[in-house]
Amino acid sequence: MLGNTFGRLFRITTVGESYGIGKGSGLAVIVDGVPPGLPLTDAFIQEEMDKRRPGVGKLNSPRLETDQCHIFAGLGQDGVTTGAPVGIIIYNVDTQPVHIEQYREYKDLCRPGHATYCFYKKYGQHQDWCGAGRSSGRETVGRVAGGAIAKYILQQEGIDLIAYTVQCMGIKAKEMSFDEAKQNYRTNEINCPDPEAAARMEKRVLEIKDEGDTAGGIIELRIKGVPAGLGEPVFDKLSALLAHAICSIGAVKGIEFGAGFEVGNMKGSENNDQFTKTDGKIGFKTNQAGGLLGGISNGDEIIIRVAVKPTPTISLKQDSVNMPKMEIEELSPITRRDPTLLGRHYSVIESMAAITIVDALMMARGYDNVCRIENKWREI
Amino acid sequence: MLGNTFGRLFRITTVGESYGIGKGSGLAVIVDGVPPGLPLTDAFIQEEMDKRRPGVGKLNSPRLETDQCHIFAGLGQDGVTTGAPVGIIIYNVDTQPVHIEQYREYKDLCRPGHATYCFYKKYGQHQDWCGAGRSSGRETVGRVAGGAIAKYILQQEGIDLIAYTVQCMGIKAKEMSFDEAKQNYRTNEINCPDPEAAARMEKRVLEIKDEGDTAGGIIELRIKGVPAGLGEPVFDKLSALLAHAICSIGAVKGIEFGAGFEVGNMKGSENNDQFTKTDGKIGFKTNQAGGLLGGISNGDEIIIRVAVKPTPTISLKQDSVNMPKMEIEELSPITRRDPTLLGRHYSVIESMAAITIVDALMMARGYDNVCRIENKWREI
Amino acid sequence: MLGNTFGRLFRITTVGESYGIGKGSGLAVIVDGVPPGLPLTDAFIQEEMDKRRPGVGKLNSPRLETDQCHIFAGLGQDGVTTGAPVGIIIYNVDTQPVHIEQYREYKDLCRPGHATYCFYKKYGQHQDWCGAGRSSGRETVGRVAGGAIAKYILQQEGIDLIAYTVQCMGIKAKEMSFDEAKQNYRTNEINCPDPEAAARMEKRVLEIKDEGDTAGGIIELRIKGVPAGLGEPVFDKLSALLAHAICSIGAVKGIEFGAGFEVGNMKGSENNDQFTKTDGKIGFKTNQAGGLLGGISNGDEIIIRVAVKPTPTISLKQDSVNMPKMEIEELSPITRRDPTLLGRHYSVIESMAAITIVDALMMARGYDNVCRIENKWREI
Amino acid sequence: MLGNTFGRLFRITTVGESYGIGKGSGLAVIVDGVPPGLPLTDAFIQEEMDKRRPGVGKLNSPRLETDQCHIFAGLGQDGVTTGAPVGIIIYNVDTQPVHIEQYREYKDLCRPGHATYCFYKKYGQHQDWCGAGRSSGRETVGRVAGGAIAKYILQQEGIDLIAYTVQCMGIKAKEMSFDEAKQNYRTNEINCPDPEAAARMEKRVLEIKDEGDTAGGIIELRIKGVPAGLGEPVFDKLSALLAHAICSIGAVKGIEFGAGFEVGNMKGSENNDQFTKTDGKIGFKTNQAGGLLGGISNGDEIIIRVAVKPTPTISLKQDSVNMPKMEIEELSPITRRDPTLLGRHYSVIESMAAITIVDALMMARGYDNVCRIENKWREI
Repeated sequence: MLGNTFGRLFRITTVGESYGIGKGSGLAVIVDGVPPGLPLTDAFIQEEMDKRRPGVGKLNSPRLETDQCHIFAGLGQDGVTTGAPVGIIIYNVDTQPVHIEQYREYKDLCRPGHATYCFYKKYGQHQDWCGAGRSSGRETVGRVAGGAIAKYILQQEGIDLIAYTVQCMGIKAKEMSFDEAKQNYRTNEINCPDPEAAARMEKRVLEIKDEGDTAGGIIELRIKGVPAGLGEPVFDKLSALLAHAICSIGAVKGIEFGAGFEVGNMKGSENNDQFTKTDGKIGFKTNQAGGLLGGISNGDEIIIRVAVKPTPTISLKQDSVNMPKMEIEELSPITRRDPTLLGRHYSVIESMAAITIVDALMMARGYDNVCRIENKWREI
Repeated sequence: MLGNTFGRLFRITTVGESYGIGKGSGLAVIVDGVPPGLPLTDAFIQEEMDKRRPGVGKLNSPRLETDQCHIFAGLGQDGVTTGAPVGIIIYNVDTQPVHIEQYREYKDLCRPGHATYCFYKKYGQHQDWCGAGRSSGRETVGRVAGGAIAKYILQQEGIDLIAYTVQCMGIKAKEMSFDEAKQNYRTNEINCPDPEAAARMEKRVLEIKDEGDTAGGIIELRIKGVPAGLGEPVFDKLSALLAHAICSIGAVKGIEFGAGFEVGNMKGSENNDQFTKTDGKIGFKTNQAGGLLGGISNGDEIIIRVAVKPTPTISLKQDSVNMPKMEIEELSPITRRDPTLLGRHYSVIESMAAITIVDALMMARGYDNVCRIENKWREI
Repeated sequence: MLGNTFGRLFRITTVGESYGIGKGSGLAVIVDGVPPGLPLTDAFIQEEMDKRRPGVGKLNSPRLETDQCHIFAGLGQDGVTTGAPVGIIIYNVDTQPVHIEQYREYKDLCRPGHATYCFYKKYGQHQDWCGAGRSSGRETVGRVAGGAIAKYILQQEGIDLIAYTVQCMGIKAKEMSFDEAKQNYRTNEINCPDPEAAARMEKRVLEIKDEGDTAGGIIELRIKGVPAGLGEPVFDKLSALLAHAICSIGAVKGIEFGAGFEVGNMKGSENNDQFTKTDGKIGFKTNQAGGLLGGISNGDEIIIRVAVKPTPTISLKQDSVNMPKMEIEELSPITRRDPTLLGRHYSVIESMAAITIVDALMMARGYDNVCRIENKWREI
Repeated sequence: MLGNTFGRLFRITTVGESYGIGKGSGLAVIVDGVPPGLPLTDAFIQEEMDKRRPGVGKLNSPRLETDQCHIFAGLGQDGVTTGAPVGIIIYNVDTQPVHIEQYREYKDLCRPGHATYCFYKKYGQHQDWCGAGRSSGRETVGRVAGGAIAKYILQQEGIDLIAYTVQCMGIKAKEMSFDEAKQNYRTNEINCPDPEAAARMEKRVLEIKDEGDTAGGIIELRIKGVPAGLGEPVFDKLSALLAHAICSIGAVKGIEFGAGFEVGNMKGSENNDQFTKTDGKIGFKTNQAGGLLGGISNGDEIIIRVAVKPTPTISLKQDSVNMPKMEIEELSPITRRDPTLLGRHYSVIESMAAITIVDALMMARGYDNVCRIENKWREI
């Protein structure tokens, strides 16, 4: 299958499916490049994991996924990291035969809007027909567990980031500062920091849910405190790496930086961010660039917007294809699903961005010089 | 600097600046993973190079860049590739001292909207202040030379691709079929296949040019004939790799697939492409997915839109920063520039997409099985 | 720490220490690039694991390591691989506080001949002082688990490989055919296919063990059935990749191919393997090349010898350094250890070679075309 | 072909054949990861290039290869590096039709001991039959040009390295200190620092040359000043990377570290290097480890020996295979060749080692912190 590793110096490798087989099945992530001396605990990782956990509230799937994570490797006897890779496992619990049998019914039918058809064409008959295998949204738990460590490192480096819903089915959140958004973005199920817009979005999504349908939206990602000069000038621009990271999330159908697609209607004089000096510090009058010039960080806030498609699993009849028969067949409504992905995907976007920024910092400074704690005996 | 290599099995490594020093300076690309037996010639590569060449027409920079390419390595005595990497060099010609002196005047000033400031922060005082170094648009000649080989390979595999302007300063091209677009997209300077829209776009850009300003736009990329199943399911989705490839182009500020950002307003039932069977072949009723489901190709046309920002170099006064002095200084108008990047960047987008698709094909089939010609003695 | 991933298309990523902390700690390996349709079971992997397991016989460490492996991810409901990465975990069992306390006594002392000192200099005070962390021989369990899958794939491709002791403390095994060696090499504790030499080696090692000391040796690796043309001509020669793979095993101090260091005394006419034709098939009169010419496989048997140093942990007093004090201190004898690594390291060498060969096959043919089983619906 | 790139953060990508076609053909190297501010010149690189140049003296091939190198990219107007990749090209000059015609005669015959046969099996009929293509020893010019930059960087870091002949056809050089060896190793054609042994080696090689034959030998590599802690603990041990680097040189058939294969006869108490303290500095009583413990540098001198096979091209009749006919055919004596590779390969070994050490330093410290010169404006 390949492609289960992301990052260069700070890197995660993930494995696992929603429904493994046998006792002790699960999903796991190996995080390589973790500096020595970090006091990681299961509870700390769990806090991030809980952000993407479904099963809470009316906008989320009723599937039972407790997603309890466990650090099984990488800590020394003193409970801190040693420089060794960190291994985190999340055992599957919702693997009752009754659910597996439900999946068995549909196992030859490709769900429209889902990757199933592509998997059949890629891997052939030996499919993991249960729970969508590696194309399940559940694959992202490893990213979030790895992202938790990345966020810890960023915090030590004075870098902060948030991702929140700014648009859903025509309803837009008002603009606000990083700090204001941060304070409010996790106070509602749709993860929108504007309470008034959030209420309208949630109402609209519930209406759509009642129709048996699902809703798409747009998530904004903001990263504060990134020093100027991150990213490489040609193929590994920070913008390119962030695009790679975020477009690797299944439901993402677009990404834009700063003014984004609006640049198609802008003049150079409107799009250029002129320089200014405030309190002896060089900065910019505007931030059309979204903190990235020529793909490299310019020291300003990084601003990115991400298009998240509606959940493809819906409770309406659709024309599907039966792979063994190679015939069109009607797919009956499916009931277990998230009416929107907005309430969960923000944490995956935050995680992928955090991993990318830590990796870029390590490329520039060396993995021994990011989040460097007081540490005796070192020679390098 | 790093990041000058792109691709896994089919990979390009580029080097070079607009203004090297000394006799014989130039830009070059090494293309690794080229199958044996391809009859490459300078003339064949040159045809693609000429697509991105400026100096032709009123919408382009008056800089003299003939960009003559020369294959200096990788061909056997019989004039065909041998499986060895191919080396292509493009010597600099526009390196007259007078131009270099013009650059010297501004060498400490960061041009707003340009990567200069980021380079100062990243590399410090040892800047290539002449012609923007590796952040110059001219860096892309190596990509286009490498892309020419990738396009040759795709042609043998029955895959075709085009990139053309669909929007510029509020003016949109009408929708059309792949074949219609292909027939017309290179008939005007702005590279728009809709002649009526093209005329209006060109007129608007000329007006903006006369103001001393520049114009942004949106380019659409379409890829026909890609088999279902390309791309890896998790971090190396085909969508993620294409996003990486295309967002590594300096002026790109956004990318979207199929319905793109419009998914933020769509229901699942609207966004899902239901299946259909025509002439015994399974296909889709619609193509909201843009040919990519879960990031993997589904066999339908791949459709991508790319936001291209206005050229940052403008003939208007702007507040800049003088790096040695760390003071704000006014930057005088600069005269040599492209009023829009739309007429040239399409070829770079096509090249990066072609390289990405060839690389993905080789990952699945092995580099020995892509564009495999009749070839004796092979054992593998 | 990095460097915990090996391979390009077929790749393993490992994690874990001998003594993790807390309940459920262990070592794990993620194997990426596994083709769909392989009927893997815990029992199948376990068979390979048992080859490197200590605790059996008088030549091995008395440490209790049952090394029970468990496939926790990567299998579909039908019990075969799906193309997804395979996750295998080995829980730690020998983690009784009493052993950990034994390690605590020596935790500041660098064992001569061991990597401890280098780890202190690299990672500083935050050491995994218990059981040598990632520099423990136990790190290799993940390699062997991944190697088991690689061996399965090679078997389907008609490739076989064995590694066995040919020399130990001056005693040499007689030369023999691949098949003869294969039949006998696992019939004694020292893993030598020549019974007479094996008996003398074992006797000598036991004498050395009684002195409180340990013994080194030389292992030969032979790979049969590799097609001509594997490996890339320049930096990724098959010889270079095998050298990388095998020299990544902790105790390895040298590697040689075919005639090896003897070439220093050979003329070209002695070292060149002339061609011959037998039964209509082109072959070689001799095999001084060890199956590798210019680093690429030539279709003949690959023959490699590996120098394995004596276990550094000995029961004799040695001058060590106390890191916190930066003073020389005498290290008391340590009792739990393998008197020689020869009986276990062969399986690690076999595993690393198998992984390297599978990876090279996939590079040439594509990961979809190695071990390709009958499989419907595939498009690529 | 692939595999034409080596290194992670400091990396070289090479291209080119001995006999390109057409005017302006040549070999080139792109060196990525070069820090800004280095005053590189053609003359500086040339000095290293001249070490591997043949055509000088009676022990070398009479081929005319002036190997003039030219830096065509990567320098700023001030003549120092800018952080951009550096491009170096070496044009072919010895491409007279008469020589090409000589090669054409033998173009279907595989030279015993040479990679030709493997290339036929790998790439099929589209061979570069002239001058051995990428399997020619001439491929190494790019490595040496890149190595020159690596050596410059090491010099700034206080690291020095030398490679010299210690054995040839049964004649051994006496042991000596690094400084003594450095002073003498380039005073004779066979590159042996022991003048008495060198004289005997040269005499022996000339005798063998007169027989129409060639001679193998052993080269020792020593690296002084490497800090403790370089290399990663598992798959990317410094020993594994050095083995990869050096075994990627065509004629290398073995590599050993420190005591090397002798460990097969050693007890732990003999092989362990005990600690000592001299002038307040921790060191080792002996250096059996060759400066590498668990594959990581321990701060002591790194000592490596490399087996270099005799040149396969000889002036004696040999049984070859005619590929189109698939028949055994006698290969007539070939006259242009090096009677031994010892006089040239040392510079390639030095280069590959230098590149590997710089890369490992950059992995630990970040590419911005190796050879860091005084440099204003940097933020990272």
